[in-house]
Amino acid sequence: MSGRGIFISEVGPRDGLQSIKSIMPTEAKKAWVSAAAAAGVPEIEVGSFVPAHILPQLADTAEIVAHARTIPGLNVAVLVPNFKGAQAAIAAGAHKITIPLSVSETHSLRNVRRSHAQMLDEVRQIAELIRSLPAGQRPHFEGGLSTAFGCTLEGVVPEQRVVELAVALMEAGCDEVGLSDTTGYGNPAQVRSLTKAVWSAVGRDKLTGIHLHNTRGQGLANALAALDVGLTTLDASLAGLGGCPFAPGASGNIVTEDLVFMLEAMGLKTGIDIDALFATRELLAQALPDEPLYGLTPLSGLPKGFEPATRK
Amino acid sequence: MSGRGIFISEVGPRDGLQSIKSIMPTEAKKAWVSAAAAAGVPEIEVGSFVPAHILPQLADTAEIVAHARTIPGLNVAVLVPNFKGAQAAIAAGAHKITIPLSVSETHSLRNVRRSHAQMLDEVRQIAELIRSLPAGQRPHFEGGLSTAFGCTLEGVVPEQRVVELAVALMEAGCDEVGLSDTTGYGNPAQVRSLTKAVWSAVGRDKLTGIHLHNTRGQGLANALAALDVGLTTLDASLAGLGGCPFAPGASGNIVTEDLVFMLEAMGLKTGIDIDALFATRELLAQALPDEPLYGLTPLSGLPKGFEPATRK
Repeated sequence: MSGRGIFISEVGPRDGLQSIKSIMPTEAKKAWVSAAAAAGVPEIEVGSFVPAHILPQLADTAEIVAHARTIPGLNVAVLVPNFKGAQAAIAAGAHKITIPLSVSETHSLRNVRRSHAQMLDEVRQIAELIRSLPAGQRPHFEGGLSTAFGCTLEGVVPEQRVVELAVALMEAGCDEVGLSDTTGYGNPAQVRSLTKAVWSAVGRDKLTGIHLHNTRGQGLANALAALDVGLTTLDASLAGLGGCPFAPGASGNIVTEDLVFMLEAMGLKTGIDIDALFATRELLAQALPDEPLYGLTPLSGLPKGFEPATRK
Repeated sequence: MSGRGIFISEVGPRDGLQSIKSIMPTEAKKAWVSAAAAAGVPEIEVGSFVPAHILPQLADTAEIVAHARTIPGLNVAVLVPNFKGAQAAIAAGAHKITIPLSVSETHSLRNVRRSHAQMLDEVRQIAELIRSLPAGQRPHFEGGLSTAFGCTLEGVVPEQRVVELAVALMEAGCDEVGLSDTTGYGNPAQVRSLTKAVWSAVGRDKLTGIHLHNTRGQGLANALAALDVGLTTLDASLAGLGGCPFAPGASGNIVTEDLVFMLEAMGLKTGIDIDALFATRELLAQALPDEPLYGLTPLSGLPKGFEPATRK
């Protein structure tokens, strides 16, 4: 795989910050986004357009999008739960909009109080809104298949159900779907199998990325499986920010620093300067002094004589 | 890979305990070995025959070997640094003896004050001693290639150097060699490449196992790479015991619980009852109350509806 490029999507400012109690000051978020982009991170999910009373941590998402849009070359992504969120995301100028759809309908009803049919209606409305925009102003629109690897409420999620909803999301107007191991239930065999199954149904170019959690320590092994099967976009969170509320010591999202080390050590270019990435972590430590930070490579340091692929 | 068996060698009583300051009481060690074996762990490295003034934590190794030998079906392994240690190991009745050889000669000189030539002399003497034993009483004799993935003193360790020393160990009389990522420098591409290179030189049946550390969070990804390439024996330490002295929060050895979860979830039978394994972890928590325990699966719990391969 030597020389191949892998696309890292930093989701810490969204998935990390929404999972902690502390509210990061807007200026600190801007500094984080700027520093990550300067380190070479190509895409950052900077927030989520949800009502402020639900996630006060992300109430300033529009302002963060506006700031991120001033950074040349950075792909600015956001999460939206519904049509209204998508309107706000488009108004703010996001390059990429992801709407999560829980494959477990129980989870969907519990989490956003919407059935699959209702969620797919939202997707159709958003797709229509995007199509109405002038070409060149249309954000990339992804449907995120959450709980795709299993659900804490329903347990096992059948592969066929994931495939059906991937097809439904594409038919409803998404540009692409993504796989999300919301619960940290996934294993490497499942990553490979599920990716291939979805590819068979929607086409290989319509699923390129995966969102993995490290709840059971499987994050990087699952990422390796994703690379092996041929996925090229990996979500990760700086310092594993957000953790896992029901498992003290468990990071939530996979840790950007450890992931970038793995990729660069394997000869896969991320375009990210790993030393600059480690320095960015310090911003988090300062802005969120009460939050635990995860990731082992920054603590252990890079191997003596290590040459990252990106510098070669 | 469904249905294939993977052999877990529990090294916590040796590599874990030698890395911590606390000295586990002999009775607690015996209870641990018994519980792990009862959970289905097929091999346990129960100690190391080193002088007690160097590693007082392992001073009771002969007694632990004797206890472990009473457990039907358990393969009892020990580490030895030299001929004298091997004599003690044989007297105690170990089934398997591993002598580590640092591929980095700087590390070898610093660690055991012996050059490669001196270490290979020890290996030859041990092999001769083993050959002199009656058939059926000869322990399996492994040469462990430590610092095979890089050295904190020398930095990059050339693959060819690992291969040469693998050949030298086999010529000196080892039954088998093993790869050891002592420093946690390894990455999945390197695991595959190095395994294949050593196989080319000594034959596939002379390298079946790997000893991985999680110093930079790469442990399970490297284990997956090892499985993919075809290695079948994986060392691991319950609760990642031992940690990593230079990286607070970093486990040393890969965590048995997370590894067994990965394998069983992938459909690879370990023969280990994962619930009984988690229960064994409690023995450590009680016997070593001041030591941090690692591993995320025991904290997060098994996925709802999870069916381990071993129970299928």
